[in-house]
Amino acid sequence: MDILAGDTGNSEFLAKNPNGKIPLLELDDGRCLSESNAILNFLAAGSELLPKDSFTLAKVQQWQFFEQYSHEPFIAVARFIAKYLGLPDNRRADYEAKQQGGHKALAVMEAQLLKTPYLTGEQLTTADIALYGYTHVAHEGGFDLTHYPAIQAWLARIASQPQYVAMV
Amino acid sequence: MDILAGDTGNSEFLAKNPNGKIPLLELDDGRCLSESNAILNFLAAGSELLPKDSFTLAKVQQWQFFEQYSHEPFIAVARFIAKYLGLPDNRRADYEAKQQGGHKALAVMEAQLLKTPYLTGEQLTTADIALYGYTHVAHEGGFDLTHYPAIQAWLARIASQPQYVAMV
Repeated sequence: MDILAGDTGNSEFLAKNPNGKIPLLELDDGRCLSESNAILNFLAAGSELLPKDSFTLAKVQQWQFFEQYSHEPFIAVARFIAKYLGLPDNRRADYEAKQQGGHKALAVMEAQLLKTPYLTGEQLTTADIALYGYTHVAHEGGFDLTHYPAIQAWLARIASQPQYVAMV
Repeated sequence: MDILAGDTGNSEFLAKNPNGKIPLLELDDGRCLSESNAILNFLAAGSELLPKDSFTLAKVQQWQFFEQYSHEPFIAVARFIAKYLGLPDNRRADYEAKQQGGHKALAVMEAQLLKTPYLTGEQLTTADIALYGYTHVAHEGGFDLTHYPAIQAWLARIASQPQYVAMV
């Protein structure tokens, strides 16, 4: 789907996700699931990426809701304005306004990653995958990660996973 | 915690939630969990409020992420500006800007609730509880729910639950 061309606003797509957003997972039987983190957890069900312990599983969700409310609206949106819209004059104030919230989110992650190798502890989970996404390209939104050594080490730890596939 | 007095910014609270937000659940053993929907699902674990079927459980999360990204930032924030800040002149443009996104979220809910009694189907889940919160007081943010009959019926359906307790 080309969101800049309005593909997510056409009636065919809206029938599958009335909220008009990507990503959208469509199963073979036609059922559809939206929201990136819900999709991630659904696809990871039964794997080691989802902890069995109920508190640790709740922590996975805590970080994923943090990603949606406190991370993505700043870091991903700043990157979108810079990378995809080309930082036009009429969006510069918006872009600048995103910087403080983005750095606050990165500081929250840094504090945790100084204590544990992954966000919820010793094990890689879907929380790390959720937050890896926009964090590993945060520099494209103007965020200098050299101030966050624990985040940098965590990014490298994830990229060194045996089945890691880089986006191109 | 009195957020208007800055209670969530003091060092004692930040030690428990570095993101400085309420709600925060503190267990007897001192462990802390933040993010309202993560708390809700943790407390509901093992109950009928969380479906056993993996796809329906993913749908619960879909609606909860929708709540955080597409509903709360419009409806709850408009209500906060109107009810708690008293709709000051310097926030009126912000308040007005929230109306369109709020109505879009309500329309997405209305479409689903025209098809099923609860958001994920026949059964009340934590998705309904998550979205009931700010929807049932949306009028305090300027949203007239008379345009959404299925939402109104759903609100009444939830309020008629045997163990429903109204906020005061």
